[in-house]
Amino acid sequence: MKSGNRPLMNRRKLVSALALLPAAGAILARAAQAQVTPSEPLASWNDGPAKQAILDFVRAITDRASPKFVPPEDRVATFDQDGTLWVEHPIYTQVVYCLDRVPAVVADNPKLKNAEPFKTVLSGDREAIARLPLRQLEEILAATLTGMSVDEFEAQAGKWLATAKHPRWNRLYTDLTYQPMLEVLQYFRDNAIKTYIVTGGGQDFVRVYAQQVYGIPPEQVVGTMGGTKFGYGKDGKPFLTKEPKLLLNDNNAGKPEGIHLMIGRRPHAAFGNSPGDRQMLEYTGAGDGARLMMLVLHDDAQREYAYGPAQGLPNTKVGTFPQSLFDEAKKNGWTVISMKSDWKRIFKFEPA
Amino acid sequence: MKSGNRPLMNRRKLVSALALLPAAGAILARAAQAQVTPSEPLASWNDGPAKQAILDFVRAITDRASPKFVPPEDRVATFDQDGTLWVEHPIYTQVVYCLDRVPAVVADNPKLKNAEPFKTVLSGDREAIARLPLRQLEEILAATLTGMSVDEFEAQAGKWLATAKHPRWNRLYTDLTYQPMLEVLQYFRDNAIKTYIVTGGGQDFVRVYAQQVYGIPPEQVVGTMGGTKFGYGKDGKPFLTKEPKLLLNDNNAGKPEGIHLMIGRRPHAAFGNSPGDRQMLEYTGAGDGARLMMLVLHDDAQREYAYGPAQGLPNTKVGTFPQSLFDEAKKNGWTVISMKSDWKRIFKFEPA
Repeated sequence: MKSGNRPLMNRRKLVSALALLPAAGAILARAAQAQVTPSEPLASWNDGPAKQAILDFVRAITDRASPKFVPPEDRVATFDQDGTLWVEHPIYTQVVYCLDRVPAVVADNPKLKNAEPFKTVLSGDREAIARLPLRQLEEILAATLTGMSVDEFEAQAGKWLATAKHPRWNRLYTDLTYQPMLEVLQYFRDNAIKTYIVTGGGQDFVRVYAQQVYGIPPEQVVGTMGGTKFGYGKDGKPFLTKEPKLLLNDNNAGKPEGIHLMIGRRPHAAFGNSPGDRQMLEYTGAGDGARLMMLVLHDDAQREYAYGPAQGLPNTKVGTFPQSLFDEAKKNGWTVISMKSDWKRIFKFEPA
Repeated sequence: MKSGNRPLMNRRKLVSALALLPAAGAILARAAQAQVTPSEPLASWNDGPAKQAILDFVRAITDRASPKFVPPEDRVATFDQDGTLWVEHPIYTQVVYCLDRVPAVVADNPKLKNAEPFKTVLSGDREAIARLPLRQLEEILAATLTGMSVDEFEAQAGKWLATAKHPRWNRLYTDLTYQPMLEVLQYFRDNAIKTYIVTGGGQDFVRVYAQQVYGIPPEQVVGTMGGTKFGYGKDGKPFLTKEPKLLLNDNNAGKPEGIHLMIGRRPHAAFGNSPGDRQMLEYTGAGDGARLMMLVLHDDAQREYAYGPAQGLPNTKVGTFPQSLFDEAKKNGWTVISMKSDWKRIFKFEPA
């Protein structure tokens, strides 16, 4: 700030002046704290249209002089998780959890040991496991994600997340979040944009680590939702049991439906990476004013994975990015993020 | 603030000093705004055990020296609506809305005119309407609360709320909120306690006015939840249609289930007024540390209504307060709020 020719007050006078103002001390302490945040947002992003789209969007909705200004309390952004905030290959982390959990389920209920699909999972034969039909995979999900109390589930999943490691990097799954996306979450929150996860993954599963890993509290995690059942323990204390009852499959059309159910308003920004996110981006884009829709393209086999089949990238069964999605993005003005060229680094543990 | 013998800086100097601090102007503006809040919390409450319980609870969870301190970001309070935050007699406001909406539904679909239960509702015969069986009442709810887009519903309900009046007071239903409870909501928020509505009423209905009337945003309204269906209009724009599909009946056991679904954590405080709130209060009370459970007893026929049948009050069909609930409150240390003796005034429009 240029001070011109006016004499600057010395620090002591300044402090005395501030003492006259109620609560000024606390306010200053908070301001000082806020300044600890690194001043450059999106430090892991290369300059380019993707980074620029984010900066332009935030400027448009936060600048009171902008015709697209949005009051702070109304600002909402939604983020898919698998493949958008963290690694989804070779298979979704929650599916690994469910498979890893099978031995404990069988130990509690030994008659499952020789019954399918549990027998195949216990065999450890990856190819046989990969061939399990959807109906049998759902049986595994039901046996490992339901039937216990909400608190027991949280303890089980929390324990697994604290130790299980991704085979490629030999690191905790929660270390495999994308650093540039963590910076978007932080940058949005610094600008009073409320950040939500909107995932096809289980709502309760993601809630176990979302606060610690993403800074996103449980009430801002929208996911595939199962019912719970209220009851009383032997001690008379009430508790909730996770039921094998699907309330909402938070994929495809389920994403805007889940957003309405849990948030009750249309997001201003939405991030995804696969056709399961298409309707969420369409719904977001149908609102007035400034809207930001972005899709992460996995085109970096060296640092992460490369899959499409858009742009001639190899096809995949997990988190595909078909050419039709690429075309819709182009048509609708959605921004495709190239992991290879838009991101300086992908993980926090990489050298900066 | 006493300035003692120190010379006061003049206003101009003070302003210059503040200009040196980044964002100080905005911070001060906010501080000045905050001071508009009256300094005495719970002004419409008489001194007594109910008011004291609220003050003690807030002190326990906000005092960093207290063993029951709760970090600001974890503080959650849930409030039933009908009979707890606003008048529920002689019938629930949302039911009045649905009945009032029938002529418009019939105008859109004239063949309903002579079909039951629409014919009875159109007759205006209150006694016949009151005798409609539950199944037929549900038909009215389905016809008036579903089938339209989320935006259309919001417009329809908003229009009604802006004009429809309660027969006893000849005032808007949204004027019939309890001033002492509005003060609790504000006092909680001033102490960083996040306030949620957890109502048996329709989630989308309550969201229409919750921000304006209670200062509670849509994502903090938990209610009876219906499904929506994502689709595209003739213009290709996506929108959500309200479906006659019940996801969760947010009453009784449904309240803690709805709290887990939407909030994902146990409240520290819960307010209700009828057996539909029992499980919510039990679930809240089963947590560690300081917990506040309160029930509003309608015992003031002169200023509002009186109904029990607890404590010999007349029985009712809407929002009953049975003696068994009164006994459970006593046993569990829940506080019963007497509208008659704990509240100085009930409505804002009463003379203070």
